[in-house]
Amino acid sequence: RLKPTKIGIISRFDNEESLNVAYNTVKYLESKGIAYKLDKGIHNALNNRLNANLMDDIQDISHIISIGGDGTVLRASKLIEGNEIPIICVDMGTVGFLTEFGKEDVYSAIDSVLNGNYTIEKRTKLSGLINYDFNDKNAGKKELKEMQKFISDALNEVVITTNNPAKIMDFEVYINGILAENVRADGIIISTPNGSTAYSLSAGGPIIEPTVDAFIIVPICPFKLSSRPLVVDGNSEIKLKIMKKSAMVVIDGNKEALVSKGDEITFRKSNSYTYFVKGSNFYNKVKKLSLME
Amino acid sequence: RLKPTKIGIISRFDNEESLNVAYNTVKYLESKGIAYKLDKGIHNALNNRLNANLMDDIQDISHIISIGGDGTVLRASKLIEGNEIPIICVDMGTVGFLTEFGKEDVYSAIDSVLNGNYTIEKRTKLSGLINYDFNDKNAGKKELKEMQKFISDALNEVVITTNNPAKIMDFEVYINGILAENVRADGIIISTPNGSTAYSLSAGGPIIEPTVDAFIIVPICPFKLSSRPLVVDGNSEIKLKIMKKSAMVVIDGNKEALVSKGDEITFRKSNSYTYFVKGSNFYNKVKKLSLME
Amino acid sequence: RLKPTKIGIISRFDNEESLNVAYNTVKYLESKGIAYKLDKGIHNALNNRLNANLMDDIQDISHIISIGGDGTVLRASKLIEGNEIPIICVDMGTVGFLTEFGKEDVYSAIDSVLNGNYTIEKRTKLSGLINYDFNDKNAGKKELKEMQKFISDALNEVVITTNNPAKIMDFEVYINGILAENVRADGIIISTPNGSTAYSLSAGGPIIEPTVDAFIIVPICPFKLSSRPLVVDGNSEIKLKIMKKSAMVVIDGNKEALVSKGDEITFRKSNSYTYFVKGSNFYNKVKKLSLME
Amino acid sequence: RLKPTKIGIISRFDNEESLNVAYNTVKYLESKGIAYKLDKGIHNALNNRLNANLMDDIQDISHIISIGGDGTVLRASKLIEGNEIPIICVDMGTVGFLTEFGKEDVYSAIDSVLNGNYTIEKRTKLSGLINYDFNDKNAGKKELKEMQKFISDALNEVVITTNNPAKIMDFEVYINGILAENVRADGIIISTPNGSTAYSLSAGGPIIEPTVDAFIIVPICPFKLSSRPLVVDGNSEIKLKIMKKSAMVVIDGNKEALVSKGDEITFRKSNSYTYFVKGSNFYNKVKKLSLME
Repeated sequence: RLKPTKIGIISRFDNEESLNVAYNTVKYLESKGIAYKLDKGIHNALNNRLNANLMDDIQDISHIISIGGDGTVLRASKLIEGNEIPIICVDMGTVGFLTEFGKEDVYSAIDSVLNGNYTIEKRTKLSGLINYDFNDKNAGKKELKEMQKFISDALNEVVITTNNPAKIMDFEVYINGILAENVRADGIIISTPNGSTAYSLSAGGPIIEPTVDAFIIVPICPFKLSSRPLVVDGNSEIKLKIMKKSAMVVIDGNKEALVSKGDEITFRKSNSYTYFVKGSNFYNKVKKLSLME
Repeated sequence: RLKPTKIGIISRFDNEESLNVAYNTVKYLESKGIAYKLDKGIHNALNNRLNANLMDDIQDISHIISIGGDGTVLRASKLIEGNEIPIICVDMGTVGFLTEFGKEDVYSAIDSVLNGNYTIEKRTKLSGLINYDFNDKNAGKKELKEMQKFISDALNEVVITTNNPAKIMDFEVYINGILAENVRADGIIISTPNGSTAYSLSAGGPIIEPTVDAFIIVPICPFKLSSRPLVVDGNSEIKLKIMKKSAMVVIDGNKEALVSKGDEITFRKSNSYTYFVKGSNFYNKVKKLSLME
Repeated sequence: RLKPTKIGIISRFDNEESLNVAYNTVKYLESKGIAYKLDKGIHNALNNRLNANLMDDIQDISHIISIGGDGTVLRASKLIEGNEIPIICVDMGTVGFLTEFGKEDVYSAIDSVLNGNYTIEKRTKLSGLINYDFNDKNAGKKELKEMQKFISDALNEVVITTNNPAKIMDFEVYINGILAENVRADGIIISTPNGSTAYSLSAGGPIIEPTVDAFIIVPICPFKLSSRPLVVDGNSEIKLKIMKKSAMVVIDGNKEALVSKGDEITFRKSNSYTYFVKGSNFYNKVKKLSLME
Repeated sequence: RLKPTKIGIISRFDNEESLNVAYNTVKYLESKGIAYKLDKGIHNALNNRLNANLMDDIQDISHIISIGGDGTVLRASKLIEGNEIPIICVDMGTVGFLTEFGKEDVYSAIDSVLNGNYTIEKRTKLSGLINYDFNDKNAGKKELKEMQKFISDALNEVVITTNNPAKIMDFEVYINGILAENVRADGIIISTPNGSTAYSLSAGGPIIEPTVDAFIIVPICPFKLSSRPLVVDGNSEIKLKIMKKSAMVVIDGNKEALVSKGDEITFRKSNSYTYFVKGSNFYNKVKKLSLME
């Protein structure tokens, strides 16, 4: 396993506890003589306590430490997009599905990485295009039409949802070019296996082990009573066509675009992955899920 | 049964078919010598074909004919709020749960009413107050605080939902003053039995016969996996407290208010009812539900 | 409130802890000078420690103390069938939905009853007839046909289920004589509000407050995807017709009868009720439900 | 594609229509000069109309034609266990998920196969061992202990279910040796993707495309409200341990074994597959599902 050369630290900075864990982590890395850089938010927040380098470019970063909840991991995953940089995900006590280490495990996790004695889990991401075709060689090069764009890769899920809470939406769902379903619903979720324990689960989707090569399509409050979550092959091309009204495209919890009638959003497996330093066991996390309030 | 003295007609007016049914209904009433008035929308739409009276006041109306789908019925129900005026609900072919007669049955339905040979179904409505107490004698008389108001009675349901599609909400649900549940969800539905076959059903609620004296509380995409629809006694006082962020209050599909952190919305059975002239059987409609696309 | 004259005790007797609670309860009643009798099982089990009277007839019993879980309460409810005898339900630490008092509350519960300072909750039961009609004056008097009988009242639910685990069943469900549903499923549950937190909940039914006047019909693993739990008016007559194969009739967890193709089972609200001395709050029990493993 | 040398015919023989389709199929094969043999049941049933060979051994069979519903396909799949013989699945009009051709398509399906102009879909099966270990080299060779056996491969699903309808069961579920879940339920389903549209769907499982390399674990009426269907990697070893009582092992609808407290049933992907001649599209079948009564 690759040993770290320079560690990037990304952290929540809106509470004292995260700041302290980040600070102590830095001090631990310094004691081990490991170079590090801090992401902008935590860099500013620790400015008065540390004279640290800003991580303004991730090209020379070998590993990331993410301190916070699943939201921080999703930010870290977005930050390293396309680069094979393992993330050490540390949570702050709240139940996280993406985090692999408790804050009490942070030093031992760092030690394992320093010793090269760790396992990496490669997680699939979902890539999306609005009004493009993945097979179009000019995709992204053409001048931008009214709404024609690449959207960020999703580690958990993409949600296409009404931005008018009182009104139902209509979608056509195509799998590999074949009309699979007409969906009337408040919205629709396309989830990775990784995202199966997040929003997809609340909407009625199954729990899927991260290694299964598949995506989940889950309608939100579907009108049709016979509607069921659908697990499609990970090599499928999934296309949603907006049949009425306008909708929000929400990626891993962030609003990314507004689409409207006639727009098509096409998804397939991303060429890049997110790499996690493996800590706790999947089923231990599933057990915690059932106790979450 | 009360015979009609003056019939009010409310109708969709955005398609030719509804206009024709409304026009033919008027002609039929004229042939029978029954007085009628037209609701504003259909009055305007038929202005060039009919010299009809505008229904600007419902005080002298004895019966309403609603021509259209469930949306039109919900409008009619709102229009007669507080008055015991039976509604003859005619649909335009699409499946409706509130409509009781097909467009081909409109003359025979009118005949039954003219003969006094009909049954009335009394439907419970849900009454809501924002930041008031039902026991507060000054409710509605006090000057308006920032957000303190009566909201319209709901024939189907009240939905309290995030107006920020990417973000989950937190509610406290009190039944008769006792904290029954902490709900983290996209939103929450308080439904009448009547509304049990509408939005509540899409969110996972049960089907409830209209005569059951109860309300249904259904969270939308709840975070807690053990969350279940809850059917409470129809004489309960249901109070929702908004614990975070702001939310939309949507009544029978119409946005009515915006509430925010700390606001409380209290519900109980309305003092007034909606009265339907009975046509088709409840279970025939339930059977159609399963075939809806 | 009625003060107790003679208390009947029914208890689990298959573990030391229940025996001890029963023994201590007896000693407490003796210290207060209250007469009591013991149900057969616990009478035998405490035979060597107590010289107690056997409860061979419930006619002179004024109150029952039930010591154990929900199963013991169901037995107590069956025992007093038709008599208005309040039950003080004490559990042994496991989560019970019918029990109202923890074992640590047993003395204070008894005190409240002795003082007449208690509330009674009246719970609806479900009455069933196989191949009879409730309106048949001779029901129960006629000679028994092949399968024609009264079945015990259910406090929680009646389950009609295949007794051949590999094979699906077909039912017709009639509500007040109208065919409401054709059900293909492993079985079907008819539950009281009281039973809504028991087996019905596992099969997908809603939680219903005990005071709602309604019954729940829930298919078990229905073939039809649009199938939903149905809440019918508590004054309805519910009739199930077995269309294929044979089935078991299970009442509150006890197999009561075997029915087969063509048999009809008719249900309505029982004329008698079960009376509980009220202890804990319904919603506190609902909260515990979500933590049950 | 392999052209057929000798075709085996397996068919329902309990209705006239299937007999006629089987008879006409034979006549069509004869007209084309293709050799065929008949499975025992249909051989007997057509004995008076045909002088056909009995298929007593499948070693020389190149292709199978299955005439009937999903049950017949499951029988055919069991018959060819371990052999790479494509099955042409013809249904009799009822909706089947395994059948690929309507009875009106039988000649054109045969023609495609004769021309070598067809596609084969390879479907995963589930292999199970009772009280053996897949890594035990002597598995199956040792003398039989009380309950120690190979069980038939499942094309759809294995159900472990209480054989006492009134009583709940307890299982421990291990994935690759790790305790993943404690399940209290009426039973548990281990389904292939192929079986995702069969019993698993009725119990709340998702629809999974046949090419996804995964198995589904679905509890039947689980006690724990937070219980959800679980989709595990197709290369997992799934072990169920029976913690209480006895249970039936039902494979593709057939009772195969009785297991009891302490018994362990281990599953993994079978080394052999079932091969279907591809006809209709998966999503067309999914659409039909929603209309099934």
